[in-house]
Amino acid sequence: MAEKISLEQLQALVSRCPFQEWLGLRVTAIEDEGVAFEMPWRPELMSSPEAMSVHGGVLATLIDLAGCCAIAAQLGHTVPTIDMRVDYHTVAKPGPLYTTGRATRIGRLVAFGEGEIRDGAGQLIASGKAVYRCKRNS
Amino acid sequence: MAEKISLEQLQALVSRCPFQEWLGLRVTAIEDEGVAFEMPWRPELMSSPEAMSVHGGVLATLIDLAGCCAIAAQLGHTVPTIDMRVDYHTVAKPGPLYTTGRATRIGRLVAFGEGEIRDGAGQLIASGKAVYRCKRNS
Amino acid sequence: MAEKISLEQLQALVSRCPFQEWLGLRVTAIEDEGVAFEMPWRPELMSSPEAMSVHGGVLATLIDLAGCCAIAAQLGHTVPTIDMRVDYHTVAKPGPLYTTGRATRIGRLVAFGEGEIRDGAGQLIASGKAVYRCKRNS
Amino acid sequence: MAEKISLEQLQALVSRCPFQEWLGLRVTAIEDEGVAFEMPWRPELMSSPEAMSVHGGVLATLIDLAGCCAIAAQLGHTVPTIDMRVDYHTVAKPGPLYTTGRATRIGRLVAFGEGEIRDGAGQLIASGKAVYRCKRNS
Repeated sequence: MAEKISLEQLQALVSRCPFQEWLGLRVTAIEDEGVAFEMPWRPELMSSPEAMSVHGGVLATLIDLAGCCAIAAQLGHTVPTIDMRVDYHTVAKPGPLYTTGRATRIGRLVAFGEGEIRDGAGQLIASGKAVYRCKRNS
Repeated sequence: MAEKISLEQLQALVSRCPFQEWLGLRVTAIEDEGVAFEMPWRPELMSSPEAMSVHGGVLATLIDLAGCCAIAAQLGHTVPTIDMRVDYHTVAKPGPLYTTGRATRIGRLVAFGEGEIRDGAGQLIASGKAVYRCKRNS
Repeated sequence: MAEKISLEQLQALVSRCPFQEWLGLRVTAIEDEGVAFEMPWRPELMSSPEAMSVHGGVLATLIDLAGCCAIAAQLGHTVPTIDMRVDYHTVAKPGPLYTTGRATRIGRLVAFGEGEIRDGAGQLIASGKAVYRCKRNS
Repeated sequence: MAEKISLEQLQALVSRCPFQEWLGLRVTAIEDEGVAFEMPWRPELMSSPEAMSVHGGVLATLIDLAGCCAIAAQLGHTVPTIDMRVDYHTVAKPGPLYTTGRATRIGRLVAFGEGEIRDGAGQLIASGKAVYRCKRNS
């Protein structure tokens, strides 16, 4: 299945969301297998001042977006999230985070997506799965 | 089971997290049955400029914190999240959001929490469940 | 919202499923707030011969059915599951299990349900949340 | 990381569970990357007599076991489930089901696992993620 939108179009869909723009998200790849994007470090993302770890809610945002973007690449439009699961594997230290997303299955009413977040050293920080609503007017 | 910490102590635990401080979270109740906190509206939280809805990642942050705070009220310290599920029931329009959290069960190694987010009209926006690690040094 | 079906009709919907019939599920209540059903003990449900605990997959079946039945009571027909989360709180020893289900929110395309499983002493064994597809022909 | 147990030992761990023995589960592979097992068809597994589909609770059992076995292959003993998510992608028709499991991350207190279920034609039926308790005496 070929992508319906270009990397620039996907970046525009991501950036028009004020929260995602505040996070500084940058789409780096859009392929048949999925999408990839980066998030830079900023101090407001911290969970604990001592650990300097990235907040779990920020990681949840990345998982949510990972599936959404992978599905958007196939459908040509973003999809609202119905529900999501996030697993926290390792504490994310200061530094950019690299997220990949994949569309597990796209049905008529709902689509399934999944994502992984890694740090600069390639270590798995968090992963998750989410379900999205495909239809727009409902 | 009596709470181990006061409302002021819980607020301090919440506010020392830079991301939660940026969100402006304010603890409003701490009781045997659970905790309650409010989040004011700010434009950077928006998911879509047209819908002016609150981003799902921000709602996930509230669910995560709901269980964490309810457990912290019993244990006297915050607990790191292992995994989380969030259900998105209704789009959250601009305005403050009201979150309640409850400790479902606190075991020796892990604790279970849950949360609900409502808008000013009392409508259920999102709900979820999460599991936390009780032990500190592991 | 009034129930669309009687307890006998709901029992018939439950029993026509061979796996649920094998489990011996019996609907005991159907109300505005939700549904309740019982499952008797049988040796094949065991997870471990030493612990004599009920298998987590059986508990997952009960959570799945809890939301499904609560939604069926409102819609008048059963609904297929899209995804589910189950939390395992305490090991279930031999003896009947009591499950309650509630429809959290019923939308046009999807419905949200939740359930709780308790043993004869009222202890919380497992709880969970699931999302179901409302529309039949899709 | 080398496996700590043989295929025969893992099969013995699986079969000593009465519910899993009733399901007829047969371990077919145990490797660094994970485990694989098969489940034969039997009429009691059906969800609907018309659709002749496999019950979602049975699929949840397979996902639960997938992660458990993959972790058991590394640790040398089975691990109790803390919580689980299952996504239902396609209805499973009569016929054997093929499940693969993988250990996403094994920590000191908890371990993360994931699984996929496919039919004989290779179609993805369900997938999921679960968290398990590593320590035995707690």
